[in-house]
Amino acid sequence: MYIEKINTPADLKKMTAEEKQALVDEIRTLLIHRMPTTGGHVGPNLGMIEPTVALHDVFTMPYDKIVFDVSHQTYTHKILTERKIAFTDPDHYFDLSGFTSPDESEYDLFTIGHTSTSLSLALGLAKARDMRGSDENVVAIIGDGSLSGGQALESLSIAGELGTNLIMIVNDNGMSIAENHGGLYENLKKLRETKGAYPCNIFKAMNLDYIFVENGNNLKEITEVLKRVKNISKPVVIHMVTQKGMGYDYAEKEKEVWHYHQPYDEKTGKNINNTQIETYTTLTRDYILEKTKKDKEVTVILAGTPSVVGFWDKERKEVGKQYMDVGIAEEAAVSIASGMAKNDGKPLLAIYSSFLQRAFDQLSQDVCINKTPITMLVNNASLYGTRDKTHLGIFDIPLISHIPELVYLAPTNANEYMAMLEWSLENKKFSVAIRMPVGKTKYTKKEVRKNYDEINKSEIIQDGNTVAIYALGQMMTKGEELAEEIQKTLGIKATLINPIYITGIDEKIAQKVKEKHKIIITLEDGIKDGGYGERIAAYFSSTDIKVKIYGLAKEFLDRYDIEEILKQNGMTVPQIIQDIKEIL
Amino acid sequence: MYIEKINTPADLKKMTAEEKQALVDEIRTLLIHRMPTTGGHVGPNLGMIEPTVALHDVFTMPYDKIVFDVSHQTYTHKILTERKIAFTDPDHYFDLSGFTSPDESEYDLFTIGHTSTSLSLALGLAKARDMRGSDENVVAIIGDGSLSGGQALESLSIAGELGTNLIMIVNDNGMSIAENHGGLYENLKKLRETKGAYPCNIFKAMNLDYIFVENGNNLKEITEVLKRVKNISKPVVIHMVTQKGMGYDYAEKEKEVWHYHQPYDEKTGKNINNTQIETYTTLTRDYILEKTKKDKEVTVILAGTPSVVGFWDKERKEVGKQYMDVGIAEEAAVSIASGMAKNDGKPLLAIYSSFLQRAFDQLSQDVCINKTPITMLVNNASLYGTRDKTHLGIFDIPLISHIPELVYLAPTNANEYMAMLEWSLENKKFSVAIRMPVGKTKYTKKEVRKNYDEINKSEIIQDGNTVAIYALGQMMTKGEELAEEIQKTLGIKATLINPIYITGIDEKIAQKVKEKHKIIITLEDGIKDGGYGERIAAYFSSTDIKVKIYGLAKEFLDRYDIEEILKQNGMTVPQIIQDIKEIL
Repeated sequence: MYIEKINTPADLKKMTAEEKQALVDEIRTLLIHRMPTTGGHVGPNLGMIEPTVALHDVFTMPYDKIVFDVSHQTYTHKILTERKIAFTDPDHYFDLSGFTSPDESEYDLFTIGHTSTSLSLALGLAKARDMRGSDENVVAIIGDGSLSGGQALESLSIAGELGTNLIMIVNDNGMSIAENHGGLYENLKKLRETKGAYPCNIFKAMNLDYIFVENGNNLKEITEVLKRVKNISKPVVIHMVTQKGMGYDYAEKEKEVWHYHQPYDEKTGKNINNTQIETYTTLTRDYILEKTKKDKEVTVILAGTPSVVGFWDKERKEVGKQYMDVGIAEEAAVSIASGMAKNDGKPLLAIYSSFLQRAFDQLSQDVCINKTPITMLVNNASLYGTRDKTHLGIFDIPLISHIPELVYLAPTNANEYMAMLEWSLENKKFSVAIRMPVGKTKYTKKEVRKNYDEINKSEIIQDGNTVAIYALGQMMTKGEELAEEIQKTLGIKATLINPIYITGIDEKIAQKVKEKHKIIITLEDGIKDGGYGERIAAYFSSTDIKVKIYGLAKEFLDRYDIEEILKQNGMTVPQIIQDIKEIL
Repeated sequence: MYIEKINTPADLKKMTAEEKQALVDEIRTLLIHRMPTTGGHVGPNLGMIEPTVALHDVFTMPYDKIVFDVSHQTYTHKILTERKIAFTDPDHYFDLSGFTSPDESEYDLFTIGHTSTSLSLALGLAKARDMRGSDENVVAIIGDGSLSGGQALESLSIAGELGTNLIMIVNDNGMSIAENHGGLYENLKKLRETKGAYPCNIFKAMNLDYIFVENGNNLKEITEVLKRVKNISKPVVIHMVTQKGMGYDYAEKEKEVWHYHQPYDEKTGKNINNTQIETYTTLTRDYILEKTKKDKEVTVILAGTPSVVGFWDKERKEVGKQYMDVGIAEEAAVSIASGMAKNDGKPLLAIYSSFLQRAFDQLSQDVCINKTPITMLVNNASLYGTRDKTHLGIFDIPLISHIPELVYLAPTNANEYMAMLEWSLENKKFSVAIRMPVGKTKYTKKEVRKNYDEINKSEIIQDGNTVAIYALGQMMTKGEELAEEIQKTLGIKATLINPIYITGIDEKIAQKVKEKHKIIITLEDGIKDGGYGERIAAYFSSTDIKVKIYGLAKEFLDRYDIEEILKQNGMTVPQIIQDIKEIL
């Protein structure tokens, strides 16, 4: 076993070519055995073993700087850089981040989880090097899917006038998360077909040198090319073809399913936790499938992540032209939705909350200033959503709820969510975003409002006194628990409010609250800073009512335990009851 | 005079070719005589007369949809669409927005002021058309400078698989606001030199059809091409060369100076209000010129707008390699700064507040999660800055002050600003943004803090009681006035606080405030929602202290009068005094 001899890249450099090849095979076996337990980015990692071994063989980190785009393809990199235990020892399988992380290792330059940024970061590394007059190589590895992101294209152009060492490896496996979308992929295809000879070349059009590597999974081939470009004195693109999922049969065949996979059985490829519950995602999927059949103008717009509406190949085919995936291009997606709405279309834009951060300007300028009636689903916007530092769903309220003209809705259950979605798609007056709940659906037996035209009109769920609870969206469950507990322990019938609208305040209800309450409790599952609770606190700030805001501290959480975080932030029911007692 | 006969494009269509040419000449004369009074985008408008006349001749708005990128080049469009009075009658010179605006005319589809969005908007218009099954032409006009923006490049690629009518006119005048930056401009140059024949073609690489127009300012030539592509059944790029500033000698020669110009004397080309006062911009410029000489690692990074640091060609040459303009590519600019900081560089990123909206994700992910010690100047972030709806400077605090790990500073005067800038560039611990004050510099005779390492440590300017004023950044002037007036009319010595840090609260000072104050006044020159005052209100929300927040309502203001807006928002000193009286 060569894997036993490897701790740092220096150990790799000592090996013979044959030993390195044997190491590659061992790493592949290791990954194939480890990933069923942990889940992970199966396809990308199996495709990047040989190139990563070659990189560490040819370059010398940390002196040379290597940046991995998105960095979800860095398992081999981690194995080669002092962290193999997380792949060899089941007790340590969950030790590491799925992305690069400077907290883990000096070999990881950045914490990265969003795509299309590696070329810019590498440009910065290179520029700083040039200013200092040192001579390290700067290398960026970017997938073909990530190239559709505007920032990657900006950076290719900027690199075109850098004039110094910068090695940009385009890892072309012919896929984004799903299939690629956009004209530039026709160009990559032609380049693959002609082994790089096709004269109209997107990279050369950016004034860049270009090298084609037909088989990036051939260790010898990729190693030789890297040796050739090492210490090069100008930017160069290495267009390297690899095979996503290489070595694991299921992953080779069903590339989209195996891009990222939950824990699975290695032999059958089947999910270990194969729960078939209805979630807000499956509900959304089913709604869209039905709605698009009835209304031929409804068009779903996505930016490279069909999973936000639970779509796979089957659903995409079913919806046909009413489905538009623009590739990883959130900025364009938002403006396209605005353009559609302006021309009497019915765009349903669905976007992952953390990636919406890329399109604030388009939402503000192209949508809200123009008051175009788009419907935007904000996915995974919750403490209960994705828990990796780079994909947190706790920043959306401060981000978008202060944009004038936007109507941002927080449904508290599935009935309300469906009603809002239906209303929004038919509305011609407002730019609407809906904070899509997360996880298992919850229904109410009560009638829910069908028409949301009366902006900022909240709803009183329980009319009481002394304590008023504003429970936003999914926090209504906690709000109900809290109201019950207040009744039980304090003998007070609290007022429970469903705000519905994140973007404003119901002044009529606020007036009622002023009249017969001493304390307001606000509950939200995002950071407090710039959040909904602060809006409420500000509104009541010159009255005698005390406002206690419950939400998260402003910090980048990472792979957190939900209950622990709630406790840390004083958000459990007993903690809140204690606070109320102290104030009363 | 043919101009007299024109009210709508229908009038234009009736004219002979000779009459249309005469009209072009009249429009040019009109613009050359009007712009000295109003100022405006001189160069872009003089270059777009012929293409605009041709567009309205060939296509039929509003049925056909025409979108102008940035839309600052639309004076001719406005003249041809029922608004010529704003160009012929000095009494109406200031009637119109400098951008397209649906509030003005049904011929204006969108309110646009940010670059690189037109292709996405047009894609949306086209997609909605296809879903409806109608047959209007969709046309987008985008400048070569705007192509460096990632969203434009994303959209070219997306257009590459649209498969239906979309006419994208690239108006290539060989300039951005300043010179173009990036490898793609080498490609445009080669295409110009070969009259479009060069085989490696950025547009064709996006799978698009391509037509080259050598002289876009030749009415006949451009008209014929537009006729040819009208009703085309797939996307096509028309690469049209025009002359920026055509017909006005100064503007033809000094293209950057005349991109946008303040009111000037037509004969001499000299500014009418030629005031040579020191502003925060000239101060920044002078600081950079000196600092970069002393420290060869300091690098200024800009995204296409050198004016934010008062740089023109002379200064750029002086600073040499320590100046990096990445083109209109804010996302890349922010990540590049992060990369530089990671490799021990000293990046000084300067960015217009309204355009920073494009780079939120990069600031959060690439900078703040990674805690890279960048220095970012946020320019024009103020009620006192640019007053057009699309360029407002009143949203930056809600936008970036809730990002974990960011240190956002609000200097109250020039001494403090200089001290912060110097500290930030030398600091290796914090990601720093500085809210650059606007307008004429103001100095203090007091010693200012040199070291800002102690995060969130505010400063008490005047220690008093009963009323505490948190006066943020430039609002300190009003804070001082207010404190004085409180003393005079209420006989109270108020406490006056300089928060310094927008991103947090000084808990020690807050404790003091709790002890001997009844009212807190917060002053900021941005919207209240998600702003600094809400942070303060939230902090004190469960105490007995009343907090009154002074800032702007959440709305898109447009070409506003500052004093009027302050009054509307209850922000004048007498109004605030009245509020205090009512609470006391």
